[in-house]
Amino acid sequence: MINKNPLTVEVTRGGMVESRHLGTAIVVDAKGRVLHAWGDTDRLIYPRSAIKPLQALPFVESGAADACGATPEELAFACASHNGEHHHVDGVSAWLKRLGLSPAHLECAAHWPHEEQTLRERILEQPVLDAASNNCSGKHTGFLATAQHLGENLAGYIQPDHPVQQRMKALLSELGEVNLDGAPDGIDGCGIPVMGMPLSAMAHALARMADPSGFGAKRRDASERILNAVMAHPYNVAGQNRFDTIAMSAAPKRFVVKTGAEAVHAGILPELGVGFALKIDDGTKRASDVIAANLLKFLGVLDEAAQGKMAYFLETPIKNAAGLHAGSVRMSDGWAG
Amino acid sequence: MINKNPLTVEVTRGGMVESRHLGTAIVVDAKGRVLHAWGDTDRLIYPRSAIKPLQALPFVESGAADACGATPEELAFACASHNGEHHHVDGVSAWLKRLGLSPAHLECAAHWPHEEQTLRERILEQPVLDAASNNCSGKHTGFLATAQHLGENLAGYIQPDHPVQQRMKALLSELGEVNLDGAPDGIDGCGIPVMGMPLSAMAHALARMADPSGFGAKRRDASERILNAVMAHPYNVAGQNRFDTIAMSAAPKRFVVKTGAEAVHAGILPELGVGFALKIDDGTKRASDVIAANLLKFLGVLDEAAQGKMAYFLETPIKNAAGLHAGSVRMSDGWAG
Repeated sequence: MINKNPLTVEVTRGGMVESRHLGTAIVVDAKGRVLHAWGDTDRLIYPRSAIKPLQALPFVESGAADACGATPEELAFACASHNGEHHHVDGVSAWLKRLGLSPAHLECAAHWPHEEQTLRERILEQPVLDAASNNCSGKHTGFLATAQHLGENLAGYIQPDHPVQQRMKALLSELGEVNLDGAPDGIDGCGIPVMGMPLSAMAHALARMADPSGFGAKRRDASERILNAVMAHPYNVAGQNRFDTIAMSAAPKRFVVKTGAEAVHAGILPELGVGFALKIDDGTKRASDVIAANLLKFLGVLDEAAQGKMAYFLETPIKNAAGLHAGSVRMSDGWAG
Repeated sequence: MINKNPLTVEVTRGGMVESRHLGTAIVVDAKGRVLHAWGDTDRLIYPRSAIKPLQALPFVESGAADACGATPEELAFACASHNGEHHHVDGVSAWLKRLGLSPAHLECAAHWPHEEQTLRERILEQPVLDAASNNCSGKHTGFLATAQHLGENLAGYIQPDHPVQQRMKALLSELGEVNLDGAPDGIDGCGIPVMGMPLSAMAHALARMADPSGFGAKRRDASERILNAVMAHPYNVAGQNRFDTIAMSAAPKRFVVKTGAEAVHAGILPELGVGFALKIDDGTKRASDVIAANLLKFLGVLDEAAQGKMAYFLETPIKNAAGLHAGSVRMSDGWAG
């Protein structure tokens, strides 16, 4: 059985709490010092897509990004869980073409957009979806570009023993100061390996990007270049109606936030030199969105105007089919836990 | 803070549990005797759409069903949270027309189908959605037919002080043996009132339909007629890819199951004379589906063939975009709790 985590998101309807989510979060600096921690932050989690900014480091520091002339827009795609809007699919496809590759080289497979408005728009066009539609297609293109630049096999780049994935494992192990040999593992939605690591180690690795002073020059430059690209192009990272795009647009160039499946959410805050990671026990996104928004506010990186733009995520209204306000998804019990 | 409920659904990925859901369930007979209980079954829940078979009782026992010549198919629609497939929308629309009414009389508002395959099929047709598309449109038609038969105002039939809703409150109060005056209340997704009641009271009310021997003749007949209609037409109650339709088709005429929003699920089992109600704390459907399927198995109403047809819900596989098996949603810790 799990420990009881203290961060609580309540789902109200009228005069009652109807459902509740529990979660854990941690804020650390680049030296791994814990500034704030709520709940069982040693628990093993799969970081999923929340660590895409970390996963882009080898692409840049290997020289692959320069070799293929990657633009900041493309660097942001490499860190994206995008909606599969035309903007995203076309952008990734053009980048692949410049590499002499096509969506057929992507091993992430195609899928319909997860975001509902995008899904409805795309369905009407009756597209033949290729793998550029996959929300991870930019990350995979970065993987391919890296393998291509380093003269590695392209086929099989998602397999655990491929150098691309071995570099990921080594990087997470080094930056999170965690031994991943023998860690529980699995397959991510896009086919790459996932490895179980403590939430605290994930946050530590993210914090190193927030304060890259401990890195060598090449990695420091790569880290800053990735964060700047993401903060300059938040639409590339997600898209319409998405938390990360809305948050980074509301507070331009103040932080990077990145969502992952099963309600993992990551933050990289250069102005504070900290990273955060959070996980909702039950994996529900409506709750991680609310915790992430409130954590940004708690950390002081949302000014009043930004809080206004983030109002939906700070407390998410629940409306019925006729549009009447029926309740909300909101934090309860505060940060004291 | 909530009590820790013992029913556990774990979401695995590879070698690790990635997320967990906790829930509570109770099985009672018509006299309210508790056969099985797991966790805090006194907690107040909103029954949501899980009690639609109960909500159909006034429609039948008032004589409204006979007055409008309601078929068993229509009785099943009155108990439905349907997909909004043509079968459902056309069926409800035809019934409304026979009443001299139209979807414009429904106060539940239109919405896009919630079930993903149906959504994709319907979007391509670019329909102008009317309120017959609402998953609750059959229940609302039953409400309208009842009000019409009893000479009550049709407009405002979803308001708490309308006789239709007053009858609902009195019925739930009587059958669940619970005082709902002053109970926390709210608005359901389709606009009708919801009232907080103990999970145990909800199960008790359901059990009375499973064993209607304590009812007077009129209500007993109404109850049996409703259950028989639902069990004979499980497709009308939900539709493609839906738990309730698949479960009642897998074990024909053995039970009625009905899902509700926020992971409430109800069961009415005439052969055992019991009802059950369950609720997942965090409101996640993937978990209530798994608990409901396993509870049907635990209660002995799924033979081997039926278990095969319910395999997806007994342990729900998680596949990645490429179709590889990545994990599953499954019960853990069993029924001992």
